[in-house]
Amino acid sequence: MTAALLTDKYELTMLAAALRDGSAGRTTTFEAFARRLPDGRRYGVVAGTGRFLEALGEFIFDDAALESLASFLDPATLDYLRDFRFTGDIDGYAEGELYFPGSPILSVTGTFAECVLLETLALSIFNHDTAIASAAARMVSAAAGRTLIEMGSRRTHESAAVASARAAYIAGFTGTSNLEANRRYSIPAMGTSAHAFTMLHTDASGPDEQAAFRAQVEALGVGTTLLVDTYDVTTGVANAIAVAGTQLGAVRIDSGDLGVLARRVRAQLDELGATGTKIVVSGDLDEFSIASLRADPVNSYGVGTSVVTGSGSPTASMVYKLVEVDGLPVEKRSSRKESHGGRKAALRLSRPTGTIVEEVIYPVSAPPEVTEPSRPLSVPLVRGGKLVTAPDLTAARSLVASGLRSLPWEGLALSQGEPAIPTRQVPVRPR
Amino acid sequence: MTAALLTDKYELTMLAAALRDGSAGRTTTFEAFARRLPDGRRYGVVAGTGRFLEALGEFIFDDAALESLASFLDPATLDYLRDFRFTGDIDGYAEGELYFPGSPILSVTGTFAECVLLETLALSIFNHDTAIASAAARMVSAAAGRTLIEMGSRRTHESAAVASARAAYIAGFTGTSNLEANRRYSIPAMGTSAHAFTMLHTDASGPDEQAAFRAQVEALGVGTTLLVDTYDVTTGVANAIAVAGTQLGAVRIDSGDLGVLARRVRAQLDELGATGTKIVVSGDLDEFSIASLRADPVNSYGVGTSVVTGSGSPTASMVYKLVEVDGLPVEKRSSRKESHGGRKAALRLSRPTGTIVEEVIYPVSAPPEVTEPSRPLSVPLVRGGKLVTAPDLTAARSLVASGLRSLPWEGLALSQGEPAIPTRQVPVRPR
Repeated sequence: MTAALLTDKYELTMLAAALRDGSAGRTTTFEAFARRLPDGRRYGVVAGTGRFLEALGEFIFDDAALESLASFLDPATLDYLRDFRFTGDIDGYAEGELYFPGSPILSVTGTFAECVLLETLALSIFNHDTAIASAAARMVSAAAGRTLIEMGSRRTHESAAVASARAAYIAGFTGTSNLEANRRYSIPAMGTSAHAFTMLHTDASGPDEQAAFRAQVEALGVGTTLLVDTYDVTTGVANAIAVAGTQLGAVRIDSGDLGVLARRVRAQLDELGATGTKIVVSGDLDEFSIASLRADPVNSYGVGTSVVTGSGSPTASMVYKLVEVDGLPVEKRSSRKESHGGRKAALRLSRPTGTIVEEVIYPVSAPPEVTEPSRPLSVPLVRGGKLVTAPDLTAARSLVASGLRSLPWEGLALSQGEPAIPTRQVPVRPR
Repeated sequence: MTAALLTDKYELTMLAAALRDGSAGRTTTFEAFARRLPDGRRYGVVAGTGRFLEALGEFIFDDAALESLASFLDPATLDYLRDFRFTGDIDGYAEGELYFPGSPILSVTGTFAECVLLETLALSIFNHDTAIASAAARMVSAAAGRTLIEMGSRRTHESAAVASARAAYIAGFTGTSNLEANRRYSIPAMGTSAHAFTMLHTDASGPDEQAAFRAQVEALGVGTTLLVDTYDVTTGVANAIAVAGTQLGAVRIDSGDLGVLARRVRAQLDELGATGTKIVVSGDLDEFSIASLRADPVNSYGVGTSVVTGSGSPTASMVYKLVEVDGLPVEKRSSRKESHGGRKAALRLSRPTGTIVEEVIYPVSAPPEVTEPSRPLSVPLVRGGKLVTAPDLTAARSLVASGLRSLPWEGLALSQGEPAIPTRQVPVRPR
């Protein structure tokens, strides 16, 4: 399957109408941005750029696609699609960059025809991946250096799961449970066993937790993580050390009051001499519960539902708007959905300490003069249809990490509040 | 890509350990169910069954998959996977069936090895599709017979968008904007144009809305839907009728106070003689705003974000639990995550009028004697690895419609409340 049908019908009916009246060839710029951050968030994290650029290469209309479109498109439009390749320019925020309301995270310039065709796919990718990375970054910040493992595949669409693992990794998670994300993006895959494995070791005389642990240690070695809460946590820990010895890698607790249990299990492990055995906790964790466990002896967090659903904000509310036609800025005027006309770029101002203070969004033709330290945010991604740089997950991870360090302290608060820095729109100059 | 890596690493490490100690061959039953409905919902709608059964056929480990697993799996496990085909039995609720807390919507019986491998993929599909269908059904019920169009592709992962269109269609939506859903599942595709198309028709003298409408009508005919709120709704409606005439199919309003605008636009259209021109509204609609527009002259709703994100509940919290090993019921005992052991089936009791009153979940070996009218909910889906019936979207749509009709009146309330009917667990008989 190509990516070309992962779109809305109206992109193609608009194309047909524009080809017919000749406006399809006008030079346009579309911009993707979010009018707001999710309720009370202080910052967002751009993710999806790499996936979007990959999808651009797969955005071709093969025979199967054209056949399915023939029911409602005229032959001229089908001919246009048969030869379609995006040949325009794309600028945008690098993957992993922070963003704020109005940040022009993507700017697509080309004919109306080629730009409009990309709308739905671009928004699907950025809205999803950005929502996940934005939630994940708050968890990373809440975990204060402890390891985070993304294990939410089962709580989201099976393909969204792969993209979620990637977005969480960009945000700073250490690894994922998802094997396709491991294969496709080389993200470290993690995971050892579930309650079912312990319960499988049941016979007529009842459950045999030690048999389960023994089988796991024999297969995976003493460095493995044993799940100790299938029946009773204290007995589980005792069984784990009895079977694996004090060199056991870790125990996992997946239910109950995790803070209380972590302290009790730490004491028990230490008493048994397993002072190096780590404690992994999981079970409906989100950024708030991760933060609340800061004082407890937890080594790693396994996070599922909340990260893959964007912790209450499963979509990033990015929109993709036409801002320029043949060099003229255009704007929608109807209520509460204004857009700012003209092709734009952005830079971020900071104090000499590196703490950011403002984001300035300006017409590309008129960069502002700034005296403060500043960093350009809009970078070239595609020129004449060709990728300028290859997607790089490591670079994206570094960018998130440095972005989080650059926030003013209130920007890292988990509580609801205003965006960490204001965004200033430099107006288009009157012509 | 096969579906086999759309899974969690621990399913495979458990397999490796179980193959090693011989427990992999034990006969097991796993069940998928939700411990609760999303906050305050009265019912849920099962969706994903058809997609899961399709994925089962693609759940094979090809060379690329095996190669990526070789880094952590032993040769015996890789050999097992190379030949893997599911050969067990699956029962479950038919797609489109209502469900309640504890309903055993899927029951998978086979060796531990083959059942455990399906866990993550099954949950991904059911958790996603069921969340969407459950939200969509509330919108269908709130729309009280008016047309609903799913247009949320841009608000969710590009592949989740296709599954969302399918789930919304099962719940009773009329069509979708998504072209891949149209191609793959023959769901009616809908959509005509966006604000960008109107704004494209701008030159040095300013915007020319009539030129945009003319181009659209010439390409798509007067039966099309013109988007009238790019600049000013009243002028937009006047331009639409001036260009298309009184036979115009519909106008769409995408912003502002939709109820007020719909009344005003209806009056304007009628005054212009366009009494047959319909009104489509869109823009951040959910089941509550759909219901609040019931008294207004709206013909169709376009629904985006809220339906593809499950209207606040993007995942259905289904779990997949081992309930039986070699004929013995097994249960997890730790805090607040109890499961009920033993392989189960379910039936639903109703009054003679058809209104449902209770769901009874019972051990398959001990069907309860009931005197009320009842309907079995668990149906065979797979026998010996082979599909028993082909997925059927039309049947699923009918099942949702009849399910909604069968609810007691308070079950259709949009407000928060208890599940519409209670669920009764008939305990496993002591052995």
